Amino acid sequence: MRIVVVKFGGSSVATPERIKRVAERIVRTKDEGVSVVAVVSAMGDTTDDLLALARQITDRPPTRELDMLLATGEQQSIALLAMAIQALGQPVISLTGAQGGITTDGVHTKAKIQAVNAERILGELAEGRIVIVAGFQGVTEDDEITTLGRGGSDTTAVALAAALQAERCEIFTDVDGVYTADPRLVPAARRLPAISYGEMLEMASSGAVVLQPRAVELAAQYGVVLEVRSSFNEHRGTLVREAGEMLEKEMYVSGVTHDTNVAKVVLIDVPDRPGVAHRIFSALARERINVDMIVQSTKAEQTTDLLFTVSRDDLPRTAEVMEQVSRELGAKGILTDLSVAKVSVVGAGMVSNPGVAALMFEALAERGINIQVISTSEIRISCLIEAERIAEAANAIHAKFGLDRSALGEAVDLR
Amino acid sequence: MRIVVVKFGGSSVATPERIKRVAERIVRTKDEGVSVVAVVSAMGDTTDDLLALARQITDRPPTRELDMLLATGEQQSIALLAMAIQALGQPVISLTGAQGGITTDGVHTKAKIQAVNAERILGELAEGRIVIVAGFQGVTEDDEITTLGRGGSDTTAVALAAALQAERCEIFTDVDGVYTADPRLVPAARRLPAISYGEMLEMASSGAVVLQPRAVELAAQYGVVLEVRSSFNEHRGTLVREAGEMLEKEMYVSGVTHDTNVAKVVLIDVPDRPGVAHRIFSALARERINVDMIVQSTKAEQTTDLLFTVSRDDLPRTAEVMEQVSRELGAKGILTDLSVAKVSVVGAGMVSNPGVAALMFEALAERGINIQVISTSEIRISCLIEAERIAEAANAIHAKFGLDRSALGEAVDLR
Repeated sequence: MRIVVVKFGGSSVATPERIKRVAERIVRTKDEGVSVVAVVSAMGDTTDDLLALARQITDRPPTRELDMLLATGEQQSIALLAMAIQALGQPVISLTGAQGGITTDGVHTKAKIQAVNAERILGELAEGRIVIVAGFQGVTEDDEITTLGRGGSDTTAVALAAALQAERCEIFTDVDGVYTADPRLVPAARRLPAISYGEMLEMASSGAVVLQPRAVELAAQYGVVLEVRSSFNEHRGTLVREAGEMLEKEMYVSGVTHDTNVAKVVLIDVPDRPGVAHRIFSALARERINVDMIVQSTKAEQTTDLLFTVSRDDLPRTAEVMEQVSRELGAKGILTDLSVAKVSVVGAGMVSNPGVAALMFEALAERGINIQVISTSEIRISCLIEAERIAEAANAIHAKFGLDRSALGEAVDLR
Repeated sequence: MRIVVVKFGGSSVATPERIKRVAERIVRTKDEGVSVVAVVSAMGDTTDDLLALARQITDRPPTRELDMLLATGEQQSIALLAMAIQALGQPVISLTGAQGGITTDGVHTKAKIQAVNAERILGELAEGRIVIVAGFQGVTEDDEITTLGRGGSDTTAVALAAALQAERCEIFTDVDGVYTADPRLVPAARRLPAISYGEMLEMASSGAVVLQPRAVELAAQYGVVLEVRSSFNEHRGTLVREAGEMLEKEMYVSGVTHDTNVAKVVLIDVPDRPGVAHRIFSALARERINVDMIVQSTKAEQTTDLLFTVSRDDLPRTAEVMEQVSRELGAKGILTDLSVAKVSVVGAGMVSNPGVAALMFEALAERGINIQVISTSEIRISCLIEAERIAEAANAIHAKFGLDRSALGEAVDLR
């Protein structure tokens, strides 16, 4: 049995009209002669509306009951989508996460999938039915309803694709693929025909969240080939797959990403002795504050300045924690700065091309853009710069690496 | 373990504020030293809203998917109610129909409860938790979600009360009990302290639907004592229980009901031969039209007039079917009349008091109200009269049987 898993996000099923369009699309996919399993999220803002309802009851709803509440969003959309498909004359059945065999651990509101029992789904497919499965939810061994947290529906789709040994897993979103840069910021950005799991993950962590990292990790683990496509047109999207499967290519950088949700924090004149960094970052970890870039600049004296970045939302709590730590360590105090942004280049080919960093710095230097912090991974280089110049920086780097549409033309589509 | 089952309808949990009030009420009940199981319906108009959503997708949604959709309404209200109770500091858990052990047959949208496995609920109660169970829903042996149809939440509550051997089952509604007549029509109507299952059923079928007949039948079958109470005040309501348990009393009539949702149909000059009635009423049964009162008046000739009543909603289809039947039987034609209404007296004591019918007719005769049709059961007598005089008739009969508040005073409360 050739199986295709398709996943539609909340905006794709936000209204009855859109649900009908998704139904038609699913039927067309089945008409290609494959068995189709569709994973859907809750309609539009349903999840947020339900959360708002819960907050009208209590400030701190128990997570177990929150899951009981939130899981209804997807249960509604699968039922409506099944109705729409049935109205097109196709046999179809909707399944909750539990009915779909999605077993999770018991960590409510951010459960992890532990097993997929695909028996029921395979049985329904064998009967010729299209199967609609509720994303974002599962059930524990004790029959408790759980939700998977942010990006849960992507994760459901990938887990099902792995369990069903699907030939592909298409993720329909409101963008039509992964771009070499954000087209709103970099007009010359092109849609990538393909990208590796690692690049996709780095792009997400450096500001371009098209797919939830958890889902990408799971896809990498099980070798599930993903395709990010638009639910509003018929264009092929971007394949996400093993780097090794890709054709050798000139382009060793896949994209330029930017992130403006960045705040800089500097702890000034920290005594330079062992254990200081641990003291600082464990205090932040306890508060579940994610630290991104870190730079320690040792001065001539016995003190050092410690600089790091966090997301803007986390800044108030970060400042609070750091004021306290600063006093305890006998540092001079803290500085915070919101006028910064991060620009990154991501590319699996970077590992074997040592000139990438130099080329990026050159693009910035040519524009006279100052680099405040640099951080790197095997397939990513990020620079913290002043926020006002982020668009200029992204465009300059994008052009420098020859990613512009004009530079590559039609030939770039590898399929 | 002393267990009380309480049931709250949709209007009682229509808003977050009302849910909080219901939570307080449940906690007060637990504070009396009993274990509490609460059954709730979907919030306010949720079920109707979901049905409207389904109709935007398709005119004929498959019932299996309709159940998948509708079951979310109760799942939301149980989660929110559990949050509200938890916010009051009480241990609590919400359970879907499936988790609550409600097993039904597979007739979607009107499933019947086949078994209740109370193990989980009893376990949760033993842990000191208040248990909130979704009304109106269950699950088949094959793990399919079902709903119980109209009045389903009442039925869930009664079934749980029976399975848990609860000491009582309190049904909270927007009225504060069962009255001797509709107070909007008969200002002197009194709330009854108690009523038998049979009377309750007759009252429902003759126009006063406070409790769903299915739930009353189930309660009668398992001897579950019901109490119909208001969710908006603390007054005791009306007990519904075995007739035999009630104290011997003067009052052999419990109430006067009226029904204005009545249409009269007359089939004129039907040939008077065997099989005619069967032909007529089987045609209506095929259309699922419920016929209430039936009168056949044989004339001197070889023909007869056949008169019956249906609900007003069913009149258009009834007329259509009857025009056809009339032609086939060679009758003269049909007459329909919407200017009729039905007034009934209901009382378990009627069986041993042969004067009831006479007293009722006397009340109508004194007012010069003409009786068009009479029908009776063991504990009910109904008269079809002109619709315009229904209030006058109900008040006259109510007074004639001494049901007025002034006639009985305080002493009537049997508890």
